[in-house]
Amino acid sequence: MGDEASLIIAASEQDANLYYATRFWAPDPFIFARIDGRGILVMSELEVDRARAESKADEVLALSKLLSEARQKGIASPGMVEALDLLFKERGVTSVRVPGSFPVAFADRLRAKGYTLTVGKEPFFPERTIKTKEEVAAIRETIRLTEEALKSAIGVIAESEIRNGELWLRGKPLTSELVRKLLHLTLMGSDCLARETIVAGGRQACDPHMIGSGPLKANEPIVLDVFPVSLKSRYYADITRAVLKGRAAPKVKKMYAAVKQGQEIAFGMLRSGVDGKGVHDAILDYFKKEGFPTGEIGGRMQGFFHGTGHGLGLEIHEPPRVSSAPDILKAGQVVTVEPGLYYLDAGGIRLEDDVLITETGCEILTTFPKLLELS
Amino acid sequence: MGDEASLIIAASEQDANLYYATRFWAPDPFIFARIDGRGILVMSELEVDRARAESKADEVLALSKLLSEARQKGIASPGMVEALDLLFKERGVTSVRVPGSFPVAFADRLRAKGYTLTVGKEPFFPERTIKTKEEVAAIRETIRLTEEALKSAIGVIAESEIRNGELWLRGKPLTSELVRKLLHLTLMGSDCLARETIVAGGRQACDPHMIGSGPLKANEPIVLDVFPVSLKSRYYADITRAVLKGRAAPKVKKMYAAVKQGQEIAFGMLRSGVDGKGVHDAILDYFKKEGFPTGEIGGRMQGFFHGTGHGLGLEIHEPPRVSSAPDILKAGQVVTVEPGLYYLDAGGIRLEDDVLITETGCEILTTFPKLLELS
Repeated sequence: MGDEASLIIAASEQDANLYYATRFWAPDPFIFARIDGRGILVMSELEVDRARAESKADEVLALSKLLSEARQKGIASPGMVEALDLLFKERGVTSVRVPGSFPVAFADRLRAKGYTLTVGKEPFFPERTIKTKEEVAAIRETIRLTEEALKSAIGVIAESEIRNGELWLRGKPLTSELVRKLLHLTLMGSDCLARETIVAGGRQACDPHMIGSGPLKANEPIVLDVFPVSLKSRYYADITRAVLKGRAAPKVKKMYAAVKQGQEIAFGMLRSGVDGKGVHDAILDYFKKEGFPTGEIGGRMQGFFHGTGHGLGLEIHEPPRVSSAPDILKAGQVVTVEPGLYYLDAGGIRLEDDVLITETGCEILTTFPKLLELS
Repeated sequence: MGDEASLIIAASEQDANLYYATRFWAPDPFIFARIDGRGILVMSELEVDRARAESKADEVLALSKLLSEARQKGIASPGMVEALDLLFKERGVTSVRVPGSFPVAFADRLRAKGYTLTVGKEPFFPERTIKTKEEVAAIRETIRLTEEALKSAIGVIAESEIRNGELWLRGKPLTSELVRKLLHLTLMGSDCLARETIVAGGRQACDPHMIGSGPLKANEPIVLDVFPVSLKSRYYADITRAVLKGRAAPKVKKMYAAVKQGQEIAFGMLRSGVDGKGVHDAILDYFKKEGFPTGEIGGRMQGFFHGTGHGLGLEIHEPPRVSSAPDILKAGQVVTVEPGLYYLDAGGIRLEDDVLITETGCEILTTFPKLLELS
């Protein structure tokens, strides 16, 4: 009988750890407990049959049965915590390990019932950061479909013509919104879901999370950051390119070359055992040396003021990080490499590829070419 | 100086309360505190400028500044909690109200620093359930676009021909996947994001959350449950229809009529001050009287074993509920009305409309016709 249980209460649609542990996709919160190595689900009547058919849990219990058991014991309005209490008592569980994101409301009530609750360090399932062959294949497939969509989108920008400094296509101004919709529709056509896709030109791209709006302009860089999830595999890809229709200013060309070289620095350093912080700092140093400082300039953050990369998998942002915080990388992890430079007088340049960390180095999973000026 | 603060730490992309309070959309967790009625954001360098431009917060602070202040005070590796501690001390905050979903990891650390943490009841912002005119207009617009997409999808089923009991369209079997993709693409074309859309025929529809797969069959009901979010307004719609190509069995016809009448019962009862439980129970009773019992039959839940409805807004499922749990409805709330009947020997029937609760009754926002048999 199993003393310490691991516990998650969440909707797997919003909680990748829960989906990872159960491979069951549901929109409403449910209970997952691991007791003595057995995965146990407690599901509403609405989901109990589907969970039995689809999840990889060892056991699927009906919440309604536990609730009526609780009522029989005289509990007036039992809920998830009372159901859990019955389950834990039956299985001899006295202490519970939960993720940091575990809802405080449930935590307080479990503690009030005498359980010792400990908050597990992130990543809650460390093994989740190490991708299996199947997971890498799934990420590769999402990358492939993303690259196809990116090719169409950049094709449209290349095809546009310049009128009074703006891009026009087939008699209409080419906007961020149009390019974004093209990306979203192409990806949806291949069962990938993209949202908040960034198509941001000029100064807009200086806010790295601004998705961009309005007519795209000639002679200034356009950042396309596309990060869809496959609705089949549920694994993400994350790719960024910067392109420009017309002629790039010398500063923009120099920024592009520096960002590309920043990626190369990361590709050369990334391997199992390396600290992500070392990689990030090396890029920051290189940028500074090339005349691209980072910090607040005129009340706005400029330069390279985000992390170099993040883990990629069932979440778009997951451990590990390649950033200013130390994080030792391991073989089997998939991370993005996405240095960027942002200056109000030039616009934004970001290039992002996805790589698999190996024992001896890293394998670049993305294959999309890098070319600033579109002919 | 403001004693009790309200506090949320989350990613607004995943937390509708946070989006509601800030109208700022971000993929990574950030801090929102309401102190003395002022909304304060603490943002990473990546988001601070965008938050100043886009959010409705009264004040946007840079996390980095608070962190360096903490470092100056000798804290080695300050994080969000240390930043909050500085902010709270400066503003005289000693107790903090958080939502039930607040991460236990942060809760424990705030309590360890001496703050009194109380868990607010749901809904955390009760005013969020009462929709403004603008919010109702936004929901109406998503409904309109959803109805357009549903019209195309049902049109395709109507247009199909029957071959050996299966539906075929233009020389190919018509599948759940094809109809779903058509819905998703049509909706994406109008800037709405749909996922997990249900197109489930026959027995598949007996699991109300099974999305459906494979060739659609003649003479059995097909449940289409479409619940997209507008990428512009971020408000949801939620509509379900059941249709059938060919001839409906007598039981299916009777189920359809009962479910439709179940909706009418709700439409007649719903108004400000009514208990959702009363509405739900009335439908359950009516179904039973009509010969459609609910419960476990042959090891599977059958009948009407989900709630009658749920609030709709920035979330697809939000308070209030119209279900077996008491919940008093208020004017200005928008809820779904979606009774269903599911029997393994007949398939599933569910009809779902969205209604606005008013002082005197309810206004049905959906207008899509209800017709079982497609000619």
